[in-house]
Amino acid sequence: MELNLKGKKAKKAAAELTKMTVKQKNRALELISGQLMHEKEFILAENEKDLDAGKENGMSDALLDRLRLTEARLQEMADALIQLTHLDDPVGEVLTSWERPNGLAITQVRVPLGVVGMIYEARPNVTVDASSLCLKTGNAVMLRGSSTAIHSNKAIVKVIHHALEKSDLPPDAVQLIEDTSRETASGMFKLNEYLDVLIPRGGAKLIKKVVENSTVPVLETGAGNCHVYIDESADKEMAINIAINAKTQRPSVCNACETIIVHREWDGLNDLVLALKEKGVAIHGDEGVCGERIIPAVEEDWSTEYLGLEVALKLVKSVEEAIIHINRYGTKHSEAIVSSNPDNVEKFLNEVDAAAVYQNASTRFTDGFEFGFGAEIGISTQKLHARGPMGLPALTSTKYIVKGNGQIKG
Amino acid sequence: MELNLKGKKAKKAAAELTKMTVKQKNRALELISGQLMHEKEFILAENEKDLDAGKENGMSDALLDRLRLTEARLQEMADALIQLTHLDDPVGEVLTSWERPNGLAITQVRVPLGVVGMIYEARPNVTVDASSLCLKTGNAVMLRGSSTAIHSNKAIVKVIHHALEKSDLPPDAVQLIEDTSRETASGMFKLNEYLDVLIPRGGAKLIKKVVENSTVPVLETGAGNCHVYIDESADKEMAINIAINAKTQRPSVCNACETIIVHREWDGLNDLVLALKEKGVAIHGDEGVCGERIIPAVEEDWSTEYLGLEVALKLVKSVEEAIIHINRYGTKHSEAIVSSNPDNVEKFLNEVDAAAVYQNASTRFTDGFEFGFGAEIGISTQKLHARGPMGLPALTSTKYIVKGNGQIKG
Repeated sequence: MELNLKGKKAKKAAAELTKMTVKQKNRALELISGQLMHEKEFILAENEKDLDAGKENGMSDALLDRLRLTEARLQEMADALIQLTHLDDPVGEVLTSWERPNGLAITQVRVPLGVVGMIYEARPNVTVDASSLCLKTGNAVMLRGSSTAIHSNKAIVKVIHHALEKSDLPPDAVQLIEDTSRETASGMFKLNEYLDVLIPRGGAKLIKKVVENSTVPVLETGAGNCHVYIDESADKEMAINIAINAKTQRPSVCNACETIIVHREWDGLNDLVLALKEKGVAIHGDEGVCGERIIPAVEEDWSTEYLGLEVALKLVKSVEEAIIHINRYGTKHSEAIVSSNPDNVEKFLNEVDAAAVYQNASTRFTDGFEFGFGAEIGISTQKLHARGPMGLPALTSTKYIVKGNGQIKG
Repeated sequence: MELNLKGKKAKKAAAELTKMTVKQKNRALELISGQLMHEKEFILAENEKDLDAGKENGMSDALLDRLRLTEARLQEMADALIQLTHLDDPVGEVLTSWERPNGLAITQVRVPLGVVGMIYEARPNVTVDASSLCLKTGNAVMLRGSSTAIHSNKAIVKVIHHALEKSDLPPDAVQLIEDTSRETASGMFKLNEYLDVLIPRGGAKLIKKVVENSTVPVLETGAGNCHVYIDESADKEMAINIAINAKTQRPSVCNACETIIVHREWDGLNDLVLALKEKGVAIHGDEGVCGERIIPAVEEDWSTEYLGLEVALKLVKSVEEAIIHINRYGTKHSEAIVSSNPDNVEKFLNEVDAAAVYQNASTRFTDGFEFGFGAEIGISTQKLHARGPMGLPALTSTKYIVKGNGQIKG
């Protein structure tokens, strides 16, 4: 059984990784960076096989583009690996330490999680990305990518192994599940013996499936039904700029805005509607939002992630009504208020339940790079372990080290 | 449907709780403390009904004792509530804050989790304990206790509601599921719409069931197959004291020792065996541990949690062998080394994968009170969110508050 065999190897490698220094880990990342470029022809040729199969099976252009590797994209990955070597290693960081009256000295330090399982769709860049973030944080990784990217993934992991063989890190730290049948995905869900955490990367359907079926703890990422609330007191130009940016700057991502909520007394509604139309955004308008080309909003619109040039437009009488709407329909991702009223801002920031709440800024900033983390594993929409953009520390756990001189419990 | 109805109420109450000050929350705890004593006759009378039913159904003395409330035990609970008011409230704590080059000011603050689900066995004290810890951290709680404690639980929650009615906190913040059929337990496992986390409190079987079936994120607590490793260089008296304490001071708890591992060259083995026998401990001995009343250990012993006066005794040739054994059979709870060799200690503390690792001290100290947290929700044996003894911060999540002045993403 491939899963058990590779799980066992990964677990053994994870134990080896706990002994590696920052220098040894960074050296391995440099070697992988170099090897990716050194074997680029091989990787691109294998990627071509996936692309050919994709075209034959009628894969959409958007999906083919996600699947496609180019020399420039490989170079980007190689560069990102070097960037990663410059980031601080969270492992070994002392979070807190204290002494007890009985003389026990307690220190809480960051340690790797152990073995990280990744389940993802047809994006071969995740193979490099997940492997490198895990190695940097001293974790082994088990990769289960899509069947449609299997040639690319096998090639990339082969190249990573070539690099790791030249390093002090065990090549077994990166395991690719080559059997891409449904059974291996379901098998990962229950692989508690070997996996410490499972991270799904992909669409809402994939994530839902993992959350609902996995007994391995899951780091949930993804879904974002984000709102921009424009308060009565909002500056007209600022509010329109932020709403347009949150909706249209990159509509396909999770931190894009899906519903704009406008206070009925705000004086910029007509200009906002015009600005949205100018950007080609279809508007699902609440009662009271009239005009040409406005589609009347239905209940379903308030919970829809359009992920495209489409938006719901809701009218409210107060900041309280906006908060209730967001806490009811939102996915606890990113929520913004545009307002010049400090009380309303304070209320919104405190009472809206989300990973990130914004005053007078676009929701598009919820992102590990925009937050300055230098790397991102994903954006957590759950409340345990890590919430919001996850940098390297999200791939660590902690350990209490207790030093005594013979203490026993009385 | 009771679950949905009460889930909805709890979620609404959780939103109210985010607005409560430390003072308001502490005042509610004081009121509950007073009300418990004020209505003690009622609670004890209802508890009597559970005890009578338990006796009729042949409940063991140990279980009856866990179920039993007395005036003294109620007083202890009332006192613990007052103690809790003296602890710092983690909610609102600023964990970190920084400014981005574009002027965005980012602050990470602690916030309540929301609604905490508790599934537990026939211990009515958990009803008070879980409610008070949740209220202190601004969380609503949904309690699903055992059918064998239903009268006690209903009485306690009634009393808590009486107290909350006099406070600023919404009484709906504490919800008891009164239908104790299997369906309500399974229902809690899938109540993702209302529950932010599920915490099982009880035996290994209950915890396993929750972990395997819950789609709500679980805080796993409990199982402890803990080891004391006695190195070649260990001080004889210290090693025996620690091993005896870890095994016998309270054998029924998760941080008690289940296997003692002894280096073959350590000179105290015979004395250790004598000391264990003197305490009435049955020994499952490895090959090479000879003597009267030694039961030969079988493979199964290395993974058994005896939770009683029984221990497995393993011999090893090196600290490395001890580490491999622990990482293979342990439950990542608490692991101790007794040694005078700094290199071996360092190796053990770094390479053993557990929530708490000890140098020259008993594993029995893994406990929120012994760690000085002043309260304990449980001892986490998982690696995500919280690991080891969990104090109040384990009942919180975080939120990023981002303040801008019109920033949009370029």
